[in-house]
Amino acid sequence: MSIEIRRFSSAQNDFAEQMNNLLAWEAVSDAGVQKTVTDIIDAIRTRGDDALIEYTNQFDRMAVASMAQLELTQQQLQQALDTLPPAQRDALLAAAERVRAYHEKQKQDSWSYTEADGTLLGQKVTPMDRVGIYVPGGKAAYPSSVLMNAIPAHVAGVPEIIMVVPTPGGELNQLVLAAAAAAGVSRVFTVGGAQAVAALAYGTATVPQVDKIVGPGNIYVATAKRAVFGQVGIDMIAGPSEILVVCDGKTDPDWIAMDLFSQAEHDEDAQSILVSTDAAFLDAVKASVDKLLPTMERQEIIRTSLINRGAFIHAQSDADAIAIINRIAPEHLELSVENPQAWLPQIRHAGAIFMGRYTAEALGDYCAGPNHVLPTSGTARFSSPLGVYDFQKRSSLIMCSADGASEMGKIASVLARGEFLTAHARSAEYRIKD
Amino acid sequence: MSIEIRRFSSAQNDFAEQMNNLLAWEAVSDAGVQKTVTDIIDAIRTRGDDALIEYTNQFDRMAVASMAQLELTQQQLQQALDTLPPAQRDALLAAAERVRAYHEKQKQDSWSYTEADGTLLGQKVTPMDRVGIYVPGGKAAYPSSVLMNAIPAHVAGVPEIIMVVPTPGGELNQLVLAAAAAAGVSRVFTVGGAQAVAALAYGTATVPQVDKIVGPGNIYVATAKRAVFGQVGIDMIAGPSEILVVCDGKTDPDWIAMDLFSQAEHDEDAQSILVSTDAAFLDAVKASVDKLLPTMERQEIIRTSLINRGAFIHAQSDADAIAIINRIAPEHLELSVENPQAWLPQIRHAGAIFMGRYTAEALGDYCAGPNHVLPTSGTARFSSPLGVYDFQKRSSLIMCSADGASEMGKIASVLARGEFLTAHARSAEYRIKD
Repeated sequence: MSIEIRRFSSAQNDFAEQMNNLLAWEAVSDAGVQKTVTDIIDAIRTRGDDALIEYTNQFDRMAVASMAQLELTQQQLQQALDTLPPAQRDALLAAAERVRAYHEKQKQDSWSYTEADGTLLGQKVTPMDRVGIYVPGGKAAYPSSVLMNAIPAHVAGVPEIIMVVPTPGGELNQLVLAAAAAAGVSRVFTVGGAQAVAALAYGTATVPQVDKIVGPGNIYVATAKRAVFGQVGIDMIAGPSEILVVCDGKTDPDWIAMDLFSQAEHDEDAQSILVSTDAAFLDAVKASVDKLLPTMERQEIIRTSLINRGAFIHAQSDADAIAIINRIAPEHLELSVENPQAWLPQIRHAGAIFMGRYTAEALGDYCAGPNHVLPTSGTARFSSPLGVYDFQKRSSLIMCSADGASEMGKIASVLARGEFLTAHARSAEYRIKD
Repeated sequence: MSIEIRRFSSAQNDFAEQMNNLLAWEAVSDAGVQKTVTDIIDAIRTRGDDALIEYTNQFDRMAVASMAQLELTQQQLQQALDTLPPAQRDALLAAAERVRAYHEKQKQDSWSYTEADGTLLGQKVTPMDRVGIYVPGGKAAYPSSVLMNAIPAHVAGVPEIIMVVPTPGGELNQLVLAAAAAAGVSRVFTVGGAQAVAALAYGTATVPQVDKIVGPGNIYVATAKRAVFGQVGIDMIAGPSEILVVCDGKTDPDWIAMDLFSQAEHDEDAQSILVSTDAAFLDAVKASVDKLLPTMERQEIIRTSLINRGAFIHAQSDADAIAIINRIAPEHLELSVENPQAWLPQIRHAGAIFMGRYTAEALGDYCAGPNHVLPTSGTARFSSPLGVYDFQKRSSLIMCSADGASEMGKIASVLARGEFLTAHARSAEYRIKD
């Protein structure tokens, strides 16, 4: 049975329009969601733990009476890790170790330099004090997300990492708890939704106020994160996951089909795009898709995703393929080509670049080392993978010598008077030598 | 004539409450502002240049008929620089040069490493393609802001820097145009408000769509930036400016009073706080304030700011002073003490740290080198000065060897199956060697 996947060519007259249609996506928080989230945030700010317990009972079908019932102990986390089947535990720990090793390279250090007149300038880098990690509950509870969100914070040196994860109906995911232990999470509260975001942003008697909140969530979580932005830091608000595979036609088409599936299986809105200069190869991958799809556990999700949002694009040249890459600014870019490194200098926007026929995107999702939290929906134009740098911040350092202050005072005085800020000018002028 | 400035001590029982009251601040976009901004954004998205011209005529009291009248030429910018009085031009160019030299040190480079089995991991750093700089118009049009926002983008290697600056009533500020020339701005449109933010975020026929928007603005600009966040990147949404001066009592009290004024003169909401372990010194600075205030051009603003939001705090010990610093997480911290470097290791949060008696904060505003766009209202807990890093983004690099893919495939397979993502698992398994 053949499925219909959009196909077009960079030679078409309406190519730009085709691309715009393919990539059109906008997450909308409608007025109802906005109102609900605003009310929830207000309630948490004014009534704290009481409101948090009420919302959790209501939305997560729980029946708890106190916050103590909504916190897990370190013992519970460690026990979850200790009692995993050995293959899973080993895989989780090996993944954590590789992710940690890669992120260590991202750590930034303080620096300073001294000018000829003795003036010191520099930048001091410090970790945040306390951060919150949002982990979705239910079916989409992914232990790999716990590793990817918590390990960079841990490597940055954040002393307190507070995780929130809803447990709808009371169901705990042992792999998620084990991942929290492996990643160095400090405390875990089994709360979720906008109420968890509000509790982290403003603090309650029990949930400590954090400095930054990261992690994916549904539209309520995303709306709440946008609302508390400024009160705390947040990471990007993620759209659906996407992959762009560029292939020279010499990779096994079954491999490429499965790579496209691995993105499409996330959810119906996920997007898988294949680009090749070889039209016959596009046909071959399409045949593999039709052959393999009936064998997939999540075939309904994959089918919907491929039909609604997938595309096979015939590029007329490598240059066209590169232009498509930069137009899309994909979250995941798979360069399944002979000499991927030769392509790199021309690639301006991509969250993560998977190079060569062996580098399945799925390896990056779990254990290659780099983060799997990546900019979606074209936001790689201006944002970066989640990293250690997201949990460090900088302070500028300025220590003027008497000579330096005197010389700079003259410049500052002129400019401040040009802006009619005379207190600035006089403050600088006090330091000018006679 | 003595003015009333709040004064309290870290020994008071209600000290924590006093601090909370002192620091309480919340920028509120009321429903009216929200509605106006939403309407403006919708209009710009649907009607582009036409709507931009209409709003500009309406809000900025202009009477233009086409976008051509709302763009300045490079020639106009260069001419503004060339015709400045020499003292101003020299000061502007000297400041630009120092700011550029400091920011060069912030540039981040790509890196990669190869593991024993031949797998390559790394991070590619690229500048953004195009960014927007918002510059307020009218009285608060500051050439120094142009330098501080545009130079980091220029140093990062951003090829197109688009500046917007409203010109209410058609009034152009020549110093602002000169600063744009000195900072390497590519194009300038004389538009402002939410309509300028919307035009930059979504593009019009004339205004090119940018990847990130930075720069300060009023509540409409801030609300519009928050609304377009995600469509483009934005910098932090700034609150009122603040300074915390910590002095050991041995700096000239007139100097310290003027340093407090230099912050207070920005606007009535600006905040100036002095901390000292020396109560007599607090008295002396208060006497200087009363003596110097009547000599200040902006004395009404300074007076209102100091009465409403200023404070003199008597710390019982250096440790208390440090606790106050970290509680406030000040935008500007002046350490007017004997050995400021000894304090550094314990300071966890501050936008910029001005060390020693000679380092007036005003020097940092104009020409010391570090950026004057700094995290306000305690957001130094999680954010950083504007910098080159705000105009660069990262892409993760992963190139697995056949051996690497085989070993990692085994780990990924186990974890993916634990998450019920079998397409991920099978994609990884294809790369496992037999």
